[in-house]
Amino acid sequence: MNSDTENIRSFMSNYIEINDKEWEYFSSMFRFKNIAKKEIVLNEGYICKDVFFVLKGLLKTYTTDSKGIKKTFHFSRENTFATDYESFLKGTPSKYSIQAIEETTVALMSIETLQNAYKTLRFGNKLGRILAEIYFFIYSDKIQSIYTQTPLERYNNMNTLFPNILQRVPQYDIASYLNITPVHLSRLKKL
Amino acid sequence: MNSDTENIRSFMSNYIEINDKEWEYFSSMFRFKNIAKKEIVLNEGYICKDVFFVLKGLLKTYTTDSKGIKKTFHFSRENTFATDYESFLKGTPSKYSIQAIEETTVALMSIETLQNAYKTLRFGNKLGRILAEIYFFIYSDKIQSIYTQTPLERYNNMNTLFPNILQRVPQYDIASYLNITPVHLSRLKKL
Repeated sequence: MNSDTENIRSFMSNYIEINDKEWEYFSSMFRFKNIAKKEIVLNEGYICKDVFFVLKGLLKTYTTDSKGIKKTFHFSRENTFATDYESFLKGTPSKYSIQAIEETTVALMSIETLQNAYKTLRFGNKLGRILAEIYFFIYSDKIQSIYTQTPLERYNNMNTLFPNILQRVPQYDIASYLNITPVHLSRLKKL
Repeated sequence: MNSDTENIRSFMSNYIEINDKEWEYFSSMFRFKNIAKKEIVLNEGYICKDVFFVLKGLLKTYTTDSKGIKKTFHFSRENTFATDYESFLKGTPSKYSIQAIEETTVALMSIETLQNAYKTLRFGNKLGRILAEIYFFIYSDKIQSIYTQTPLERYNNMNTLFPNILQRVPQYDIASYLNITPVHLSRLKKL
Protein backbone atom coordinates (compact mmCIF):
# COMPACT_ATOMS: atom_id res chain seq x y z
CA MET A 1 0.00 0.00 0.00
CA ASN A 2 2.97 2.29 -0.63
CA SER A 3 1.27 4.67 -3.04
CA ASP A 4 -1.66 4.86 -0.62
CA THR A 5 0.52 5.96 2.28
CA GLU A 6 2.20 8.48 -0.02
CA ASN A 7 -1.29 9.83 -0.83
CA ILE A 8 -1.92 10.35 2.86
CA ARG A 9 1.41 12.08 3.37
CA SER A 10 0.76 14.34 0.44
CA PHE A 11 -2.73 15.16 1.80
CA MET A 12 -1.29 16.03 5.21
CA SER A 13 1.48 18.12 3.65
CA ASN A 14 -1.19 20.44 2.27
CA TYR A 15 -1.71 21.62 5.83
CA ILE A 16 1.39 20.99 7.94
CA GLU A 17 5.11 20.23 7.74
CA ILE A 18 5.85 16.61 8.47
CA ASN A 19 9.42 15.30 8.35
CA ASP A 20 10.63 11.78 7.49
CA LYS A 21 11.07 10.73 11.10
CA GLU A 22 7.57 11.87 12.09
CA TRP A 23 6.12 10.24 9.01
CA GLU A 24 7.88 6.93 9.61
CA TYR A 25 6.42 6.72 13.11
CA PHE A 26 2.96 8.01 12.25
CA SER A 27 2.46 5.93 9.09
CA SER A 28 3.40 2.74 10.96
CA MET A 29 0.13 3.15 12.88
CA PHE A 30 -2.20 3.07 9.86
CA ARG A 31 -4.40 0.14 9.09
CA PHE A 32 -6.08 -0.40 5.72
CA LYS A 33 -9.39 -1.95 4.86
CA ASN A 34 -11.20 -2.94 1.69
CA ILE A 35 -14.95 -2.43 1.94
CA ALA A 36 -17.38 -4.25 -0.36
CA LYS A 37 -20.12 -2.29 -2.14
CA LYS A 38 -23.13 -1.88 0.21
CA GLU A 39 -21.10 -3.05 3.24
CA ILE A 40 -21.90 -1.12 6.41
CA VAL A 41 -18.82 -0.16 8.44
CA LEU A 42 -20.54 1.81 11.19
CA ASN A 43 -24.01 1.21 12.63
CA GLU A 44 -25.99 3.86 14.52
CA GLY A 45 -25.92 3.19 18.25
CA TYR A 46 -22.43 1.68 18.23
CA ILE A 47 -19.29 3.58 19.19
CA CYS A 48 -17.39 4.82 16.17
CA LYS A 49 -13.90 3.37 16.61
CA ASP A 50 -12.18 4.85 13.56
CA VAL A 51 -11.81 7.76 11.24
CA PHE A 52 -11.98 6.48 7.64
CA PHE A 53 -9.81 8.25 5.09
CA VAL A 54 -11.06 7.25 1.64
CA LEU A 55 -8.24 6.23 -0.71
CA LYS A 56 -10.51 4.86 -3.44
CA GLY A 57 -14.28 4.57 -3.67
CA LEU A 58 -17.22 6.31 -2.06
CA LEU A 59 -18.90 6.12 1.35
CA LYS A 60 -22.17 7.60 2.50
CA THR A 61 -23.06 8.68 6.01
CA TYR A 62 -26.73 8.51 6.96
CA THR A 63 -28.97 8.80 9.97
CA THR A 64 -32.39 7.28 10.62
CA ASP A 65 -35.40 9.41 11.60
CA SER A 66 -38.12 8.45 14.08
CA LYS A 67 -40.16 6.82 11.27
CA GLY A 68 -37.21 4.60 10.36
CA ILE A 69 -36.44 6.49 7.17
CA LYS A 70 -32.74 6.72 6.29
CA LYS A 71 -31.54 10.25 5.62
CA THR A 72 -28.31 10.55 3.65
CA PHE A 73 -26.22 13.18 5.33
CA HIS A 74 -22.85 13.27 3.65
CA PHE A 75 -20.75 11.64 0.92
CA SER A 76 -17.05 10.86 1.36
CA ARG A 77 -15.05 10.55 -1.84
CA GLU A 78 -11.32 10.07 -2.44
CA ASN A 79 -9.05 12.08 -0.10
CA THR A 80 -11.87 12.98 2.26
CA PHE A 81 -13.00 11.58 5.59
CA ALA A 82 -15.96 9.63 6.90
CA THR A 83 -16.61 9.17 10.61
CA ASP A 84 -18.99 10.04 13.40
CA TYR A 85 -16.38 12.36 14.86
CA GLU A 86 -18.32 13.10 18.05
CA SER A 87 -18.84 9.40 18.79
CA PHE A 88 -15.19 8.77 17.89
CA LEU A 89 -13.78 11.51 20.13
CA LYS A 90 -16.15 11.10 23.08
CA GLY A 91 -16.76 7.34 22.94
CA THR A 92 -20.54 7.93 22.85
CA PRO A 93 -23.03 5.93 20.72
CA SER A 94 -22.95 6.94 17.07
CA LYS A 95 -25.86 8.88 15.59
CA TYR A 96 -24.87 7.90 12.07
CA SER A 97 -24.22 4.85 9.96
CA ILE A 98 -21.57 4.62 7.27
CA GLN A 99 -21.99 2.44 4.19
CA ALA A 100 -20.03 1.92 0.98
CA ILE A 101 -21.76 3.07 -2.22
CA GLU A 102 -18.88 1.65 -4.30
CA GLU A 103 -16.14 -0.85 -3.54
CA THR A 104 -13.91 1.26 -1.32
CA THR A 105 -10.41 1.26 0.19
CA VAL A 106 -9.82 3.26 3.35
CA ALA A 107 -7.03 4.02 5.78
CA LEU A 108 -8.26 3.65 9.35
CA MET A 109 -7.16 5.83 12.23
CA SER A 110 -8.12 4.85 15.78
CA ILE A 111 -8.47 7.27 18.69
CA GLU A 112 -5.10 6.03 20.01
CA THR A 113 -3.48 6.84 16.66
CA LEU A 114 -4.98 10.31 16.76
CA GLN A 115 -3.85 10.92 20.33
CA ASN A 116 -0.40 9.70 19.35
CA ALA A 117 -0.39 12.10 16.41
CA TYR A 118 -1.14 15.02 18.71
CA LYS A 119 1.75 13.97 20.92
CA THR A 120 4.37 13.06 18.34
CA LEU A 121 3.77 15.30 15.32
CA ARG A 122 5.11 18.80 15.88
CA PHE A 123 2.07 20.25 14.12
CA GLY A 124 -0.48 17.56 15.00
CA ASN A 125 -2.83 19.93 16.82
CA LYS A 126 -2.56 22.41 13.98
CA LEU A 127 -3.61 19.69 11.51
CA GLY A 128 -6.48 18.68 13.81
CA ARG A 129 -7.56 22.30 14.06
CA ILE A 130 -7.48 22.92 10.30
CA LEU A 131 -9.39 19.71 9.51
CA ALA A 132 -12.01 20.48 12.17
CA GLU A 133 -12.34 23.97 10.65
CA ILE A 134 -12.77 22.56 7.14
CA TYR A 135 -15.54 20.19 8.25
CA PHE A 136 -17.12 22.95 10.32
CA PHE A 137 -17.31 25.09 7.14
CA ILE A 138 -18.82 22.19 5.17
CA TYR A 139 -21.54 21.70 7.78
CA SER A 140 -22.13 25.40 8.23
CA ASP A 141 -22.61 25.78 4.44
CA LYS A 142 -24.94 22.80 4.47
CA ILE A 143 -27.17 24.40 7.10
CA GLN A 144 -27.14 27.69 5.25
CA SER A 145 -28.20 25.96 2.05
CA ILE A 146 -31.06 24.18 3.86
CA TYR A 147 -32.28 27.53 5.20
CA THR A 148 -31.85 29.61 2.06
CA GLN A 149 -31.86 27.44 -1.06
CA THR A 150 -34.57 25.49 -2.88
CA PRO A 151 -34.05 21.74 -3.40
CA LEU A 152 -33.32 22.47 -7.10
CA GLU A 153 -30.58 24.96 -6.19
CA ARG A 154 -29.12 22.46 -3.74
CA TYR A 155 -29.27 19.73 -6.42
CA ASN A 156 -27.43 21.96 -8.87
CA ASN A 157 -24.72 22.64 -6.30
CA MET A 158 -24.07 19.00 -5.45
CA ASN A 159 -21.46 18.49 -8.16
CA THR A 160 -19.53 21.49 -6.83
CA LEU A 161 -19.60 20.17 -3.28
CA PHE A 162 -18.83 16.59 -4.30
CA PRO A 163 -17.26 16.51 -7.80
CA ASN A 164 -18.97 13.93 -10.10
CA ILE A 165 -21.26 12.81 -7.30
CA LEU A 166 -24.39 12.90 -9.46
CA GLN A 167 -22.81 10.34 -11.79
CA ARG A 168 -21.77 8.01 -8.95
CA VAL A 169 -24.74 7.96 -6.61
CA PRO A 170 -28.21 6.34 -6.96
CA GLN A 171 -31.15 8.74 -7.33
CA TYR A 172 -32.69 7.73 -4.01
CA ASP A 173 -29.51 8.76 -2.17
CA ILE A 174 -29.50 12.12 -3.92
CA ALA A 175 -33.17 12.66 -3.02
CA SER A 176 -32.46 11.61 0.54
CA TYR A 177 -29.51 14.01 0.78
CA LEU A 178 -31.79 16.81 -0.44
CA ASN A 179 -34.43 15.70 2.10
CA ILE A 180 -37.06 15.24 -0.63
CA THR A 181 -38.77 12.18 -2.14
CA PRO A 182 -37.39 10.46 -5.27
CA VAL A 183 -40.61 11.48 -7.10
CA HIS A 184 -40.00 15.12 -6.17
CA LEU A 185 -36.39 14.84 -7.39
CA SER A 186 -37.46 13.35 -10.71
CA ARG A 187 -39.93 16.23 -11.20
CA LEU A 188 -37.20 18.81 -10.40
CA LYS A 189 -34.82 17.30 -12.93
CA LYS A 190 -37.39 17.84 -15.70
CA LEU A 191 -37.54 21.61 -15.00
CA MET B 1 -12.85 44.90 32.79
CA ASN B 2 -10.79 42.78 35.16
CA SER B 3 -13.51 40.27 36.03
CA ASP B 4 -14.28 39.97 32.32
CA THR B 5 -10.71 39.04 31.44
CA GLU B 6 -10.71 36.57 34.33
CA ASN B 7 -13.86 35.03 32.80
CA ILE B 8 -12.02 34.53 29.55
CA ARG B 9 -9.02 32.99 31.26
CA SER B 10 -11.26 30.64 33.19
CA PHE B 11 -13.07 29.68 29.97
CA MET B 12 -9.76 28.93 28.21
CA SER B 13 -8.48 26.97 31.20
CA ASN B 14 -11.31 24.49 30.65
CA TYR B 15 -9.42 23.34 27.57
CA ILE B 16 -5.71 24.16 27.86
CA GLU B 17 -3.00 25.10 30.33
CA ILE B 18 -2.14 28.78 30.17
CA ASN B 19 0.49 30.27 32.48
CA ASP B 20 0.71 33.83 33.84
CA LYS B 21 3.25 34.98 31.28
CA GLU B 22 1.22 33.67 28.35
CA TRP B 23 -1.92 35.18 29.80
CA GLU B 24 -0.35 38.58 30.35
CA TYR B 25 0.69 38.77 26.72
CA PHE B 26 -2.48 37.28 25.25
CA SER B 27 -4.95 39.28 27.34
CA SER B 28 -3.22 42.55 26.41
CA MET B 29 -4.54 42.00 22.87
CA PHE B 30 -8.24 41.90 23.76
CA ARG B 31 -10.59 44.70 22.94
CA PHE B 32 -14.02 45.08 24.51
CA LYS B 33 -17.22 46.45 23.07
CA ASN B 34 -20.67 47.30 24.38
CA ILE B 35 -23.38 46.60 21.85
CA ALA B 36 -26.81 48.24 22.08
CA LYS B 37 -29.95 46.12 21.80
CA LYS B 38 -30.79 45.58 18.10
CA GLU B 39 -27.39 46.91 16.98
CA ILE B 40 -25.92 45.00 14.04
CA VAL B 41 -22.20 44.24 14.40
CA LEU B 42 -21.72 42.22 11.22
CA ASN B 43 -23.54 42.67 7.91
CA GLU B 44 -23.78 39.95 5.25
CA GLY B 45 -21.42 40.68 2.37
CA TYR B 46 -18.80 42.38 4.54
CA ILE B 47 -15.66 40.67 5.81
CA CYS B 48 -16.01 39.47 9.37
CA LYS B 49 -13.09 41.12 11.19
CA ASP B 50 -13.58 39.68 14.67
CA VAL B 51 -14.60 36.74 16.76
CA PHE B 52 -17.05 37.95 19.43
CA PHE B 53 -16.88 36.26 22.82
CA VAL B 54 -20.06 37.13 24.72
CA LEU B 55 -19.38 38.26 28.29
CA LYS B 56 -22.93 39.46 28.96
CA GLY B 57 -26.02 39.54 26.79
CA LEU B 58 -27.21 37.68 23.72
CA LEU B 59 -26.40 37.83 20.00
CA LYS B 60 -28.14 36.21 17.08
CA THR B 61 -26.58 35.13 13.80
CA TYR B 62 -28.85 35.14 10.77
CA THR B 63 -28.68 34.79 7.03
CA THR B 64 -31.02 36.14 4.35
CA ASP B 65 -32.63 33.88 1.75
CA SER B 66 -33.24 34.73 -1.91
CA LYS B 67 -36.68 36.19 -1.04
CA GLY B 68 -35.08 38.57 1.47
CA ILE B 69 -36.37 36.65 4.48
CA LYS B 70 -34.04 36.61 7.48
CA LYS B 71 -33.34 33.14 8.84
CA THR B 72 -32.04 32.96 12.41
CA PHE B 73 -29.24 30.48 12.45
CA HIS B 74 -27.65 30.53 15.88
CA PHE B 75 -27.82 32.22 19.29
CA SER B 76 -24.71 33.21 21.25
CA ARG B 77 -25.17 33.57 24.98
CA GLU B 78 -22.66 34.22 27.78
CA ASN B 79 -19.34 32.37 27.42
CA THR B 80 -20.00 31.37 23.83
CA PHE B 81 -18.86 32.78 20.50
CA ALA B 82 -20.45 34.60 17.59
CA THR B 83 -18.66 35.07 14.28
CA ASP B 84 -18.72 34.13 10.63
CA TYR B 85 -15.65 31.98 11.18
CA GLU B 86 -15.12 31.18 7.50
CA SER B 87 -15.24 34.86 6.52
CA PHE B 88 -13.01 35.68 9.50
CA LEU B 89 -10.36 33.06 8.67
CA LYS B 90 -10.40 33.39 4.89
CA GLY B 91 -11.15 37.10 4.55
CA THR B 92 -14.12 36.32 2.26
CA PRO B 93 -17.49 38.14 2.33
CA SER B 94 -19.65 37.07 5.23
CA LYS B 95 -22.75 34.96 4.60
CA TYR B 96 -24.23 35.93 7.95
CA SER B 97 -25.21 38.98 9.93
CA ILE B 98 -24.85 39.30 13.69
CA GLN B 99 -27.22 41.41 15.79
CA ALA B 100 -27.72 41.98 19.51
CA ILE B 101 -31.00 40.67 20.94
CA GLU B 102 -30.15 42.21 24.34
CA GLU B 103 -27.66 44.86 25.39
CA THR B 104 -24.42 42.91 25.12
CA THR B 105 -20.76 43.13 26.13
CA VAL B 106 -18.22 41.20 24.08
CA ALA B 107 -14.49 40.63 23.95
CA LEU B 108 -13.23 41.00 20.39
CA MET B 109 -10.46 38.93 18.88
CA SER B 110 -9.04 39.93 15.48
CA ILE B 111 -7.36 37.53 13.06
CA GLU B 112 -3.98 38.97 14.10
CA THR B 113 -4.77 38.20 17.75
CA LEU B 114 -5.70 34.65 16.80
CA GLN B 115 -2.55 34.15 14.74
CA ASN B 116 -0.54 35.55 17.63
CA ALA B 117 -2.25 33.12 19.98
CA TYR B 118 -1.24 30.19 17.77
CA LYS B 119 2.34 31.41 17.84
CA THR B 120 2.70 32.42 21.47
CA LEU B 121 0.46 30.11 23.50
CA ARG B 122 2.03 26.68 23.97
CA PHE B 123 -1.35 25.05 23.47
CA GLY B 124 -2.92 27.63 21.13
CA ASN B 125 -3.48 25.18 18.29
CA LYS B 126 -4.93 22.66 20.72
CA LEU B 127 -7.44 25.26 21.92
CA GLY B 128 -8.28 26.17 18.31
CA ARG B 129 -8.77 22.50 17.50
CA ILE B 130 -11.03 21.82 20.49
CA LEU B 131 -13.19 24.90 19.86
CA ALA B 132 -13.51 24.05 16.15
CA GLU B 133 -14.54 20.52 17.19
CA ILE B 134 -17.16 21.84 19.64
CA TYR B 135 -18.73 24.08 17.01
CA PHE B 136 -18.52 21.29 14.46
CA PHE B 137 -20.56 19.08 16.84
CA ILE B 138 -23.10 21.85 17.38
CA TYR B 139 -23.62 22.25 13.64
CA SER B 140 -23.61 18.54 13.00
CA ASP B 141 -26.33 18.06 15.64
CA LYS B 142 -28.29 20.91 14.11
CA ILE B 143 -28.27 19.25 10.69
CA GLN B 144 -29.24 15.93 12.22
CA SER B 145 -32.17 17.54 14.02
CA ILE B 146 -33.36 19.20 10.79
CA TYR B 147 -33.31 15.80 9.04
CA THR B 148 -34.80 13.71 11.80
CA GLN B 149 -36.90 15.83 14.18
CA THR B 150 -40.23 17.60 13.87
CA PRO B 151 -40.36 21.36 14.53
CA LEU B 152 -42.05 20.60 17.88
CA GLU B 153 -39.23 18.28 18.93
CA ARG B 154 -36.70 20.91 17.89
CA TYR B 155 -38.63 23.58 19.83
CA ASN B 156 -38.62 21.39 22.94
CA ASN B 157 -34.85 20.92 22.64
CA MET B 158 -34.02 24.59 22.31
CA ASN B 159 -33.69 25.20 26.04
CA THR B 160 -31.22 22.33 26.27
CA LEU B 161 -29.12 23.70 23.44
CA PHE B 162 -29.35 27.30 24.66
CA PRO B 163 -30.32 27.41 28.37
CA ASN B 164 -33.21 29.84 29.04
CA ILE B 165 -33.31 30.89 25.40
CA LEU B 166 -37.10 30.60 25.13
CA GLN B 167 -37.43 33.21 27.88
CA ARG B 168 -34.97 35.62 26.28
CA VAL B 169 -35.82 35.57 22.59
CA PRO B 170 -38.82 36.98 20.66
CA GLN B 171 -41.21 34.42 19.14
CA TYR B 172 -40.39 35.41 15.56
CA ASP B 173 -36.71 34.58 16.16
CA ILE B 174 -37.63 31.21 17.59
CA ALA B 175 -39.90 30.49 14.60
CA SER B 176 -37.16 31.63 12.24
CA TYR B 177 -34.61 29.40 13.97
CA LEU B 178 -37.00 26.46 13.54
CA ASN B 179 -37.50 27.46 9.88
CA ILE B 180 -41.28 27.74 10.36
CA THR B 181 -43.72 30.68 10.41
CA PRO B 182 -44.68 32.42 13.69
CA VAL B 183 -48.28 31.20 13.11
CA HIS B 184 -47.05 27.61 12.83
CA LEU B 185 -45.01 28.06 16.03
CA SER B 186 -47.99 29.45 17.92
CA ARG B 187 -50.06 26.43 16.81
CA LEU B 188 -47.33 24.01 17.94
CA LYS B 189 -47.12 25.59 21.38
CA LYS B 190 -50.83 24.88 21.93
CA LEU B 191 -50.33 21.14 21.35
